Amino acid sequence: MMFHEIPLNRPLTPLLDQVPTPDKLRELPVDALPELARELREFMLWSTGQTGGHFGAGLGVIELTIALHYVYNTPQDRVVWDVGHQTYPHKILTGRKEQMLTMRQQDGLAAFPRREESPYDTFGVGHSSTSISAALGMARAAELTGSERKVVAVIGDGAMTAGMAFEALNDAAHQNANMLVILNDNQMSISNAVGGLSNYFSRIWASKSYIALREGGKRVLQSMPTAMNFVRRTEEQMKTMVTDAPGALFESIGFNYVGPIDGHNLDELIETIANLSEAKGPQLLHVFTTKGKGFAPAEADPIGYHAISKIAPVTERAAEPAAKAKKTAASSIDATASAAHVVAAVAPKPKKYSDVFGDWLCAAAAKDLRLVGITPAMCEGSGMVSFAAQYPERYHDVAIAEQHAVTFAAGLACEGLKPVVAIYSTFLQRGYDQLIHDVALQNLDVTFAIDRAGLVGEDGPTHAGAYDLAFLRCIPNMIIAAPSDEAECHALLEAAWQHQGPSAVRYPRGTGTGAAINASTELPAIGRARTLRRGVEVAILNFGSRLEAVAQAADELKKLGLATPTIVDMRWVKPLDEACLVELANSHSLLVSVEEHAVMGGAGSAVGEWLHANGYHCGLLTIGIRDAYIEHASPVQMHAACGLDRDGIVRAIGERLARTQLGH
Amino acid sequence: MMFHEIPLNRPLTPLLDQVPTPDKLRELPVDALPELARELREFMLWSTGQTGGHFGAGLGVIELTIALHYVYNTPQDRVVWDVGHQTYPHKILTGRKEQMLTMRQQDGLAAFPRREESPYDTFGVGHSSTSISAALGMARAAELTGSERKVVAVIGDGAMTAGMAFEALNDAAHQNANMLVILNDNQMSISNAVGGLSNYFSRIWASKSYIALREGGKRVLQSMPTAMNFVRRTEEQMKTMVTDAPGALFESIGFNYVGPIDGHNLDELIETIANLSEAKGPQLLHVFTTKGKGFAPAEADPIGYHAISKIAPVTERAAEPAAKAKKTAASSIDATASAAHVVAAVAPKPKKYSDVFGDWLCAAAAKDLRLVGITPAMCEGSGMVSFAAQYPERYHDVAIAEQHAVTFAAGLACEGLKPVVAIYSTFLQRGYDQLIHDVALQNLDVTFAIDRAGLVGEDGPTHAGAYDLAFLRCIPNMIIAAPSDEAECHALLEAAWQHQGPSAVRYPRGTGTGAAINASTELPAIGRARTLRRGVEVAILNFGSRLEAVAQAADELKKLGLATPTIVDMRWVKPLDEACLVELANSHSLLVSVEEHAVMGGAGSAVGEWLHANGYHCGLLTIGIRDAYIEHASPVQMHAACGLDRDGIVRAIGERLARTQLGH
Repeated sequence: MMFHEIPLNRPLTPLLDQVPTPDKLRELPVDALPELARELREFMLWSTGQTGGHFGAGLGVIELTIALHYVYNTPQDRVVWDVGHQTYPHKILTGRKEQMLTMRQQDGLAAFPRREESPYDTFGVGHSSTSISAALGMARAAELTGSERKVVAVIGDGAMTAGMAFEALNDAAHQNANMLVILNDNQMSISNAVGGLSNYFSRIWASKSYIALREGGKRVLQSMPTAMNFVRRTEEQMKTMVTDAPGALFESIGFNYVGPIDGHNLDELIETIANLSEAKGPQLLHVFTTKGKGFAPAEADPIGYHAISKIAPVTERAAEPAAKAKKTAASSIDATASAAHVVAAVAPKPKKYSDVFGDWLCAAAAKDLRLVGITPAMCEGSGMVSFAAQYPERYHDVAIAEQHAVTFAAGLACEGLKPVVAIYSTFLQRGYDQLIHDVALQNLDVTFAIDRAGLVGEDGPTHAGAYDLAFLRCIPNMIIAAPSDEAECHALLEAAWQHQGPSAVRYPRGTGTGAAINASTELPAIGRARTLRRGVEVAILNFGSRLEAVAQAADELKKLGLATPTIVDMRWVKPLDEACLVELANSHSLLVSVEEHAVMGGAGSAVGEWLHANGYHCGLLTIGIRDAYIEHASPVQMHAACGLDRDGIVRAIGERLARTQLGH
Repeated sequence: MMFHEIPLNRPLTPLLDQVPTPDKLRELPVDALPELARELREFMLWSTGQTGGHFGAGLGVIELTIALHYVYNTPQDRVVWDVGHQTYPHKILTGRKEQMLTMRQQDGLAAFPRREESPYDTFGVGHSSTSISAALGMARAAELTGSERKVVAVIGDGAMTAGMAFEALNDAAHQNANMLVILNDNQMSISNAVGGLSNYFSRIWASKSYIALREGGKRVLQSMPTAMNFVRRTEEQMKTMVTDAPGALFESIGFNYVGPIDGHNLDELIETIANLSEAKGPQLLHVFTTKGKGFAPAEADPIGYHAISKIAPVTERAAEPAAKAKKTAASSIDATASAAHVVAAVAPKPKKYSDVFGDWLCAAAAKDLRLVGITPAMCEGSGMVSFAAQYPERYHDVAIAEQHAVTFAAGLACEGLKPVVAIYSTFLQRGYDQLIHDVALQNLDVTFAIDRAGLVGEDGPTHAGAYDLAFLRCIPNMIIAAPSDEAECHALLEAAWQHQGPSAVRYPRGTGTGAAINASTELPAIGRARTLRRGVEVAILNFGSRLEAVAQAADELKKLGLATPTIVDMRWVKPLDEACLVELANSHSLLVSVEEHAVMGGAGSAVGEWLHANGYHCGLLTIGIRDAYIEHASPVQMHAACGLDRDGIVRAIGERLARTQLGH
């Protein structure tokens, strides 16, 4: 059953409605499950069309999700999903069908598994490659506490390239853990999964046995006996069946490898998983799935359909020509997923920061042969599509491998090249040690282009980049810029890159104010701020993306008669513009820092350190993200929740001024 | 040639003296090299005996080091050593023989490769598993710049368990890089290398071919042709020779695997490496070496002889009975290496913090079955030897796999267990993302026992734990303690562990003041400080290990008539004791924070944030590590260099008071 359009009206799902929770699912006969899969797929197409969200991964695991809940006694048994965006079908099947329309909205369902949300969500996942480690912990806990519960981790082929998955496989084999790892091989991660492991999988895909499997639809593991001889017989069957020994990698580590099998064949999945669920020791089941399965446009373009924007309601769309509306419904792509598929709107939309970076990267590469661009599997998200096409020799997608990305850059820099590592703030946390030791300690000339710094909206706290200033500014030799708009982003990238030594430029997700980029602008000096507005008493020090809100807040404060603030765009978090700070501290009674970052350890904290170190007694108010995780919502809602919008800034400054006048 | 004692007098090394640099080495005939190896081994035994330092790893790669510099045109060709402590022979052979007596001393040679130290040190290494990534960067740079230089990475079997090595192997295969990875398989890392990879190697060691190799000393790759057919012929030879296909893991990723060969047979090494140096594409040579090779006591106890303390000069040792002196010379072990081998001194030495932790861990495990202890390959260093012996079921050495260690703990905590992750501050940087997402964001009950927090002496900046407070305190849900002595360490570990949620206790390397531990002491409340001394005007807020110096400084300030400081042992960096801060800020004009941590973002910075947020105008002086890497030296020298000793604290406070009185 292939869908060609996203349903605009809620589909009828009589069978799905009968199974609100997995215990009811397990009462169905096996032969009812294909129809259940069809309904589940249609429902997910519709609900995701209504809310926007991750798309292709969920469609690819409809059958696997049904099979897992059918075989295992969830939630007593533990299913750990790696990279949460494949869990929409899981959420629908585990009591959250009616909540799907709140997906990624304030107070609604999270896009990822969350332990607080459901007992079926065994482990919160935002970043990839954690599932085997977590599941091994659960398996070990079951053993230590004498529980009979079973544990399964489901991990994609892209996620398998990350080192921590390999670390976990090693340890699971060492512990001889009773656990099943399902390798959900859809032949791609968010970008193309690259690396030797991918070559390895390519060989499997090309193997005779797999082709035969695909063509004939044969069962791999027909009439498999359970009980004692299970493992040995599996091995024998595998060895006669598979010519290329596809499991060599996993077998060599110590896993019992089974597969590959067709991940959309429910009979085969259920029989194989049921058998493996009884096996002792570490088991790996290799399953082939198709990302976007069952929705023709997504099968044809799985990267473009990684996620979709919500479809405009029919009333809004009525004004558009019918044909265009349909195209929008079918191919409107979430900003996180793909630059190549954004549907052109009538008015030119402001540039995304990732595209500002991509444009700068191409321009810099054209001028200097030493530039090499590196991404850990985030080519589209980081705005590197053009660069990759124009400079394939100097473009490196190293797969989901943040640690390696950073040290690989260090190696390049040792030889006089000038690498740029494009990485999301939240993923840089995975390469932190490498940044400290391999780059900064050796004072190597590597530029970090840190995307998604600050709040990221619907993806929520796992993807927020709220800590980079704190964990970077304590590192000697680092310099760190925080541009306030697109033009500044371009200029500060150039300044940071021209600096000889480790540098970082952090910029937010999405679009900015639309400031025009003039490539011939004078290069900002390292550690020099720019004063935008002269006022009295209160000076607002802007660090990064909230400058527009700062300016609005200053206007409002003036209008209210509370203050006429000076506004300085600090540009650099490290080094701070000390001359500017001297001047401000001597001429104002209150400094206010504004940053889209945790207040603890952030840019405002750096200003505070400077004031105390230099004996200034003017007040300091630091506005930023308080010491809590900010739940997913729209960016506007999140900024409001953090007091980082106009009203929040006005309120905070107003309260501080009132308190000061009361003499405290 | 087997040595049984460390030479106390400088040995004669006529051949070694002829080859001050590798270009001279390359002029020697091959048959002179075994004698060179003998002299090099003897020289290294003597020089390391004089200075103390890493020991077993260097002895194990004497022949490999000679072979690499003999075959490759170093430093034009790049040899990247993984984990620097194996580079003593490399340093001796590359122009630093006479400087070996300055090893690990202030202004002397570093224990690890350092780019500033020598052009032969291609990449600075302190943490393991970085060499393949760095070498791949260099290989790629050679390709991009049209250089013919060759690149080799030398990595141990222990280091190969870390995920980033796997990430790099994948990418090297994907890039089809012209590089050689030498797997230096000495069958252990610092602790036992565990994990599936280790099982995999064990199978190799047990294979017939390897036993034959060992016994017969036969050449593996006899009369190997170079040129075009090289790779194919190698494969054929391997396949006929090796029954267990030991290269399956590496071959499956995409490397051409050669080996295993005897890493102490110079002829075989040179011939094989010479052939591989001409091969195109990613090559892996598997070499077996013996840690401590050629020194009988170290071969028998490679863990104990990971590193040694320097041997007392003959004059000091004259008082001891001759037999005992000999034993001391042969088995005196560096504090970093092994608890089991410390030679008993006459007076009982104060406990090391790692042993305080180990004792607490055993006591807590006895009381609560939920405790599970986890180490990433640092059993001895973290003081877990007793725990591992007493509670093998609840002890997990997960190998060099910090990322997995943290998320594995998270999985255990999901099921109601109470895991303790024992990890050095510097290595926690490798598990940072996992700490944020998998532990803190989910508010899971994991306790981090952070050893080696602060300066670590002779190992230098790669091992310093100078950033943990900055990178941890910005993370919501974390609580962080910094004990000031051994008794506090025990009590705060217990308090942090009893706390439901993520917690960290940071304590330094080595010994403390010797404070007696009383297990029945009342448990410190979370976020409550203790006031040790009441004074006026100046209040010193101690965070962690420098309390003794703080007390001495306070005495000295009083003696000098400069101040009579209040002293508060803050105990907790997060949450801060706000009631205490209110009282101090209201009653003193200057607060002084003291911490063995970077001042940027550290505990003093947290106090500053609090003062500014609450509108206090008293002064704050933050004493800690300035924004620079602190070079290796003795701990006493390093504390002096940072102003963290008595005199430094007195000086800083005195200067600040003088400045304040001048009205600034």
